[in-house]
Amino acid sequence: MEPVALLGGNTPDHEKVIGWQAPPLKFGVGATREIGYELTRAGIRSVLLVTDPSLAALGLPSQVAKSVEQEGVSVSVFDRSAVEPTDASCAEAAAELSSLDVDGYIGLGGGSSIDTAKMLNLLLSHPGRAVRDYLNAPVGAGAPIPGPLKPLVAVPTTAGSGSECTAMVALGVSGLRVKTGISDRRLLPSLAVVDPANTLTLPPAVTASSGYDVLTHACESYTARAYDRRPPYPAPADRPLYVGANPISDIWAEQALRLVGRHLRRAVLNPYDLEARTGMSQAACFAGMGFGNAGTHIPHACAYPIAGLVRDYRPDGYPAGHALVPHGAAVVATAAAAFEFTYPTSPERHLRAAELLGANLNGITAANGADVLPATLLSIVADTGGPTGLSRFGYSRRDLPALVEGALKQQRLLVCCPRDVAARDLERILTDSMTG
Amino acid sequence: MEPVALLGGNTPDHEKVIGWQAPPLKFGVGATREIGYELTRAGIRSVLLVTDPSLAALGLPSQVAKSVEQEGVSVSVFDRSAVEPTDASCAEAAAELSSLDVDGYIGLGGGSSIDTAKMLNLLLSHPGRAVRDYLNAPVGAGAPIPGPLKPLVAVPTTAGSGSECTAMVALGVSGLRVKTGISDRRLLPSLAVVDPANTLTLPPAVTASSGYDVLTHACESYTARAYDRRPPYPAPADRPLYVGANPISDIWAEQALRLVGRHLRRAVLNPYDLEARTGMSQAACFAGMGFGNAGTHIPHACAYPIAGLVRDYRPDGYPAGHALVPHGAAVVATAAAAFEFTYPTSPERHLRAAELLGANLNGITAANGADVLPATLLSIVADTGGPTGLSRFGYSRRDLPALVEGALKQQRLLVCCPRDVAARDLERILTDSMTG
Ligand SMILES: [Fe+2]
Ligand SMILES: [Fe+2]
Repeated sequence: MEPVALLGGNTPDHEKVIGWQAPPLKFGVGATREIGYELTRAGIRSVLLVTDPSLAALGLPSQVAKSVEQEGVSVSVFDRSAVEPTDASCAEAAAELSSLDVDGYIGLGGGSSIDTAKMLNLLLSHPGRAVRDYLNAPVGAGAPIPGPLKPLVAVPTTAGSGSECTAMVALGVSGLRVKTGISDRRLLPSLAVVDPANTLTLPPAVTASSGYDVLTHACESYTARAYDRRPPYPAPADRPLYVGANPISDIWAEQALRLVGRHLRRAVLNPYDLEARTGMSQAACFAGMGFGNAGTHIPHACAYPIAGLVRDYRPDGYPAGHALVPHGAAVVATAAAAFEFTYPTSPERHLRAAELLGANLNGITAANGADVLPATLLSIVADTGGPTGLSRFGYSRRDLPALVEGALKQQRLLVCCPRDVAARDLERILTDSMTG
Repeated sequence: MEPVALLGGNTPDHEKVIGWQAPPLKFGVGATREIGYELTRAGIRSVLLVTDPSLAALGLPSQVAKSVEQEGVSVSVFDRSAVEPTDASCAEAAAELSSLDVDGYIGLGGGSSIDTAKMLNLLLSHPGRAVRDYLNAPVGAGAPIPGPLKPLVAVPTTAGSGSECTAMVALGVSGLRVKTGISDRRLLPSLAVVDPANTLTLPPAVTASSGYDVLTHACESYTARAYDRRPPYPAPADRPLYVGANPISDIWAEQALRLVGRHLRRAVLNPYDLEARTGMSQAACFAGMGFGNAGTHIPHACAYPIAGLVRDYRPDGYPAGHALVPHGAAVVATAAAAFEFTYPTSPERHLRAAELLGANLNGITAANGADVLPATLLSIVADTGGPTGLSRFGYSRRDLPALVEGALKQQRLLVCCPRDVAARDLERILTDSMTG
């Protein structure tokens, strides 16, 4: 930390302003049928529907396209969004679609399809720029989006990323074996249509890993370095999208934790439990409204190299084509160790998070509670068949230097950690996360 | 109630979809200084700043104008918004400003100034239409706003109406001695800048009545007829902005109740208690995010004739020019009796609202708790010097028919009551509210 400047009559001060935003929502079973109405109401006459091959095979995208066309909106379909989109997969899709002229976008699918839709909107609205221009520094140039994007309706079919409620995309960077993202207020969807019925056909393994993403979004944003425990920003433009934990993001994080605690096990163990699916769809969306403004920290910073450096892990429930660690599995893998590390910055928050997830705090005090949240997380993961450590993905101690180096690149996230994080801290957390 | 149609293979069903929206927020002490930056970022080069004479006399509007101009945005000022705007006051202001050409609006003040800014944006963006075209039926024609409005930044200086977070305006109707409103998604501000420091100079009586508005917004939306305890709408366009209590509005209402319970007395009793002012500014805004989507019911329906029919009541803390009942005083006046009437529809919710406001539920069950929420409300009002009954405003039993008739006109609100409301119910509630 730099010493606080006390010269020139300046008194040291702290940041006091919270930024917060969320898209309009349409939530509930049957909401999917109203996409066409909403597009028409917004004056949109043509859209690109972005989705993925697995979902296309199940038929939902063609049903959506048909119902939207019935309202007089013409629909083009791009159904090849990648399971883990990269700068290259987005640039290639944009090149292929460069002659397309639409008024708006529908992103239908998991976070990958919604993020691909966001990227196509960006690349086709402002041609001539590369994905790397926008990627968060130091991987990319972190340039702001130069002008308005077209309206985008986000329609999640998983309860996970919360991308329907956030102003960001997560992307792999081809050639670098690293993942990073783009954060810009213009990426916020114009409307989120969250229909829990769209998640009923998700296989248990995908339900589980999507749910771990929700779980860690909520825990990380709830424990993030608070917006007012930071030095003031020199100018409003310097305030990041991720302002840190604040009274508004806390509300969403707490609700998401309560919902995950009640519904994740149920949704994994019985896919047709609509009440649990509804709870998880709310949880994903609410967590997005929280972390999308507050930020995430160590588990997400570590998840990027964990996903990026994978060699041959092929998880259940995902397309068999290539090795990958599902994002939710990657984030939850270091969560227990990470929250043990951050516990001293706010025992109350860590214990409250555990309690909302269902932990019993009888006899627990700040002094003896460091392992309560980690144990609560591990119990949820164990009950839902989740990963039992990084070794499960094929990693060993030999991979530590590369994993640490990759995590350290995510400074945009690590500044949200409630305590400073050095390489040795990450090494310790990753080591402790090797076996479950 | 019409009998449910069971012909033609239709099964009776219920509504399942929630609509919800909120503006982007910038919250905190000092946020006011960032309005110019936000306007510039949105590409706005000229604005109309709408405020009222009392605030203009205190100097805040000229400070805001100066700071906005420093960012290169030109500012015109309209500083004569009425304490209780009417169709006529808005139409007159619009006529006077008809040659004005601006890119956007700032509404700076209480709900009245923000609502006047919303109306000027509407009338100047779509000239040639009358206010009555838009007013809620049956008072007006309830026409939808025909196209986009210009960006509007709402900057509240009270903690009350929540207009900074809602897609509606409240208006008196000249000649009719009635108040009503306009609800349309296009009226949602583009940005809410909520700076608790702007409320520090509010006199105690205004702090109190603004706070009663927050209190009733939260109680009414929390107890409103739930979104899914209604018949389904024939088409999405038939779903009203006020969808009823739902899991998203409940979150906001609960937070607002908790904050009002902790902070309203403090803010009234010591105007410079910044922590209490911050709590109340959050409460007003959070309640707006709730009731602006869920709706209000009996207390707000009754408040419109209570304000509209006033003869010579002149409250402390408001301009001495004309008789008025402050909106917050008018809504809270029937709240205790109204919530006793609605109690059987959900004892749990009424008791939970009371608990969040600070009531002790020891020994209370659904069977014996009907007066807990009413007593909790009356205690807050008594501790903050509020009205002790409608008789305080000059009303007597002779006024009941006119008050009942005026309340019955607010069907848009009464459909949100969790039970059907007949004239005799309103008469009973108004009678019980005559003395405190
Ligand atoms: Fe994530
Ligand atoms: Fe109100």
